[in-house]
Amino acid sequence: MRVLGLDPGLRNLGWGVIEVEGSRVSHVANGICRSGEGALAVRLLALYRQLTVILAEHAPDAAAVEETFVNRDGAGTLKLGQARGIALLAPAEAGLEVGEYAATAVKKALVGTGRAEKAQVAHMVRMHLPGAVFAGPDASDALAVAICHAHHLQSRRSLVAALARTPS
Amino acid sequence: MRVLGLDPGLRNLGWGVIEVEGSRVSHVANGICRSGEGALAVRLLALYRQLTVILAEHAPDAAAVEETFVNRDGAGTLKLGQARGIALLAPAEAGLEVGEYAATAVKKALVGTGRAEKAQVAHMVRMHLPGAVFAGPDASDALAVAICHAHHLQSRRSLVAALARTPS
Repeated sequence: MRVLGLDPGLRNLGWGVIEVEGSRVSHVANGICRSGEGALAVRLLALYRQLTVILAEHAPDAAAVEETFVNRDGAGTLKLGQARGIALLAPAEAGLEVGEYAATAVKKALVGTGRAEKAQVAHMVRMHLPGAVFAGPDASDALAVAICHAHHLQSRRSLVAALARTPS
Repeated sequence: MRVLGLDPGLRNLGWGVIEVEGSRVSHVANGICRSGEGALAVRLLALYRQLTVILAEHAPDAAAVEETFVNRDGAGTLKLGQARGIALLAPAEAGLEVGEYAATAVKKALVGTGRAEKAQVAHMVRMHLPGAVFAGPDASDALAVAICHAHHLQSRRSLVAALARTPS
C-alpha cells in the first residue's frame, strides 16, 4: 500500500509518499507545495491544487498529517491552521482516511523517543528510505509522518490478525 | 450582484447571501453549515461539501470571510484556522475573489463604530434586510460580513467612477 505523509505550513507544505509491503517501507516521491504570493484564499487554493495533483499522480491508499505545534503566537497558529485545513481536506476528498500524529509521536515512532532532535529524525528517515533525495526539511518531515503512519497501520493489522487467531 | 458572507467556525460555519443593486441590499438566503462528529478531516470535508452546494445554488459574484479572532488558546485558534482555510478555499475554487474583514471593520461598516456590541450588529443586519429570518447568530454574522463587503465594493466602484470622470 502507498502512504502519503504531509507536514503542513502556509508557505511550504511538505509531502512524501512511501510504499509499504509488510513491515518494509520504500521511497516513492517527496516534494514541497508552495503557496506563493497573493491573497490568502489564492495561496490556499494553490496548495489545494498541488495536493490534488499529487493525490492523482501517486494514488495513495492512506494519508497522515502532522499535528501542528500550537505554542506560538495566535496569528502564526491561525495561518498554520488554515494550511492544515487544506492538508486534511485534500486527501479526505480523495476518499482517504486521514491519520493525525503529534510531532512527539512521529519522533517516537522513528527514533524511539518523543524528545528526539530534528536531525535524528531526518537521519532515521534516510535510514528507512536509502537513496531518497529530499526536496527539503519539510519533505523529510512529511516522509517521517508517512513512516509513522505505516508503523501504526502495521501494528493495527498485526493486532487484528492476533485477535482473529485467539480462540473464542 | 450577489455577495456571499462567511463567518467561519469548526462546529458551525455561518453563511449568508445578499443581492446588491447599487447601494441597496436585499436578503437572498442564510444558514449554518455543521461539521458534525467524527475525525477532523471528515468534519472539514463536510463543511467543504456544504459550501460547494451553497456556491452552486446561489452563484454569488463575490465572497468575503470574517477575520478570525486570535486572542484565545492555541488549540482553539488552530481549530478555527482549519475551518477558516475551508471557508477561504471553497469560494476561491469557484473562481471568486475572496475579501477578508476584521470583526471591527464589519462592526464599523454596519454600526459606525468598531466597538459595537454583537446585538447592535444583529439589529443593523435586520434593518438592512427586513423580513429575513436568521438561522442563528453565526448566519446573522455572515450576513453582516456580506453587507460590509457590499459597502466596500460599492465604495470601490464609486471611486473608480469618480476617477474616470476626473479630467486628466
